[in-house]
Amino acid sequence: MNRRVVLAARPSGLPAPGDFAFAESRVPEPAKGEFLVAARYLSADPLQRWRMDETANYGATISIGETIWGRMVGEVVRSRHPGWREGDFAEGMLGWQTYALSRGETEKARYAPGVTRVDPSLAPVSTALGIFGMPGVTAYFAMLEICDPRPGKTVVVSAAAGAVGSLAGQIAQLHGCRVVGITGGPEKAHHVQSELRFDAAIDYRGAPDLQSALRAACPDGVDAFFDNTGGDVADAVYPLLAKGARVAVVGRIAQLEGKGTRADVQEYILAARARLEGFIVYDYEHRADEARQRIAGWLAAGEVSYRETVHDGIESAPQALIDMLQGRGLGKHVIRID
Amino acid sequence: MNRRVVLAARPSGLPAPGDFAFAESRVPEPAKGEFLVAARYLSADPLQRWRMDETANYGATISIGETIWGRMVGEVVRSRHPGWREGDFAEGMLGWQTYALSRGETEKARYAPGVTRVDPSLAPVSTALGIFGMPGVTAYFAMLEICDPRPGKTVVVSAAAGAVGSLAGQIAQLHGCRVVGITGGPEKAHHVQSELRFDAAIDYRGAPDLQSALRAACPDGVDAFFDNTGGDVADAVYPLLAKGARVAVVGRIAQLEGKGTRADVQEYILAARARLEGFIVYDYEHRADEARQRIAGWLAAGEVSYRETVHDGIESAPQALIDMLQGRGLGKHVIRID
Repeated sequence: MNRRVVLAARPSGLPAPGDFAFAESRVPEPAKGEFLVAARYLSADPLQRWRMDETANYGATISIGETIWGRMVGEVVRSRHPGWREGDFAEGMLGWQTYALSRGETEKARYAPGVTRVDPSLAPVSTALGIFGMPGVTAYFAMLEICDPRPGKTVVVSAAAGAVGSLAGQIAQLHGCRVVGITGGPEKAHHVQSELRFDAAIDYRGAPDLQSALRAACPDGVDAFFDNTGGDVADAVYPLLAKGARVAVVGRIAQLEGKGTRADVQEYILAARARLEGFIVYDYEHRADEARQRIAGWLAAGEVSYRETVHDGIESAPQALIDMLQGRGLGKHVIRID
Repeated sequence: MNRRVVLAARPSGLPAPGDFAFAESRVPEPAKGEFLVAARYLSADPLQRWRMDETANYGATISIGETIWGRMVGEVVRSRHPGWREGDFAEGMLGWQTYALSRGETEKARYAPGVTRVDPSLAPVSTALGIFGMPGVTAYFAMLEICDPRPGKTVVVSAAAGAVGSLAGQIAQLHGCRVVGITGGPEKAHHVQSELRFDAAIDYRGAPDLQSALRAACPDGVDAFFDNTGGDVADAVYPLLAKGARVAVVGRIAQLEGKGTRADVQEYILAARARLEGFIVYDYEHRADEARQRIAGWLAAGEVSYRETVHDGIESAPQALIDMLQGRGLGKHVIRID
């Protein structure tokens, strides 16, 4: 049977376990030109939460009763497609389910989405959802195309221990920047400094005054801000922007807790003559290979590291998403399917 | 005697006449290397208001009792400088006074600021404060460097009947854009459409629902927003930003009335993958001649027009600033000195 996670109710703010339900249906048979993928890992990504809203701000919205949109990496177990064979691995927006049909790279229809080929001999296939997947591509392009990392610049990254932030900060370091990570909790702050080797890490939950802590860590101001969260954390960074600063607006998780940005962003942007730019990874899908190749090189040279937080079984998928949105765990959250 | 306008009290919000006082002192004698300028016109500019705050966000703050910082165009009436002769005309940050000393282009000291040479045979000298002055340079670079005007784009300009907005919109038209002006009052809206030939003008004071009016005027969304005001007007534009939109944050007059932007700017910037950038003209002073030459060409060809609102006598200077900040009158506000 194909086991699926479906949307039971539209969450307001953080999703709750009751917003999800499980359904079973027969494993579908591939038609001519299709192939069947058996999930190895499902992905928990922030964008999934936005797609649970009645009106999604970007991308399509998930209907009540519909399988949760989500990325999967898995193995081809039956194929009637000339380019895909049993034993091949594929990654794509195949949904939170244990089996999915695809028509390969070219087909982008909702019922049989396109996929990317994954070489399981190069890295654990779960990395196709993380450092070699959309989080990696996000970190790469949002840092390089918006933040303009150059030697001597001070770069601040929020959600620094997460899948995107951890790589974004390491990329800035590789470009000679002084990198300051903001993260929640002492263990994550320790991880960011000791394992990711950021120049400084600030635990915003433990800092009595986040802005003072930031000011101390960034005595010459902030030249680039890679923002994965928005909210209070972003509000504390804006007043410290240096002249000509770059801000990449990548994530807005703080909104889920009703914490939209209160700072008068335009005022700080004007005073600093800063440039603030929104980033959505799907605009860069056509350049994803460029990112993957650079990241593979850094990884092979030991210049970047990554972590995964693994949840077991499709039943753990809702909690994986909730944990990720609440900032629990390190690196990329994946759900392992046996 | 040299008659001066001095800061009597720090305004909160819009300045009041009582925040200013008048002082007289002897007309200073130029030392070697200096020359004396007799004011013909003084300028009323938004930046002056910000300099009246205890802590100016950008630029220096004016002390209580000090002559109000402000731009002047005037005639050299006495000179001990080898490069400047009696009868020459100069423009610069010479203060709200009837006479000022300068050391010419090279000297940027506070007591004898640098000036730019003005050719009175080319245009009325008052234009050195307006279309050929900082407002013109602002409109030129903020439109061309940030808004990226190109054929078919929809560009929205706030404070469209003002010194900066009126030229910014005309420059966008010259680049093939559809231009929508937002302004306060039916006469100004009429002026923007009939004389400046914007494609549409919206009177935000008369519009029962500014966002609906904007949506009707911009059916394909807003590709560029040249923002001179911030506040409610900006809040109505942000949700309409089209994918890849550009926003130039040029002015923040709405803040004076306690109307900071309430919209969650980052959310709209992210959804639209827009780019928002702060602009302060002093960063472009070294390129001002490039702007002046292009503007002179357009003016000579009848491709742009400008207006001035003339206030008479240095006694009218405080009210000129208040009128300008409240959006009264068309085009550039200047104070004529006889």
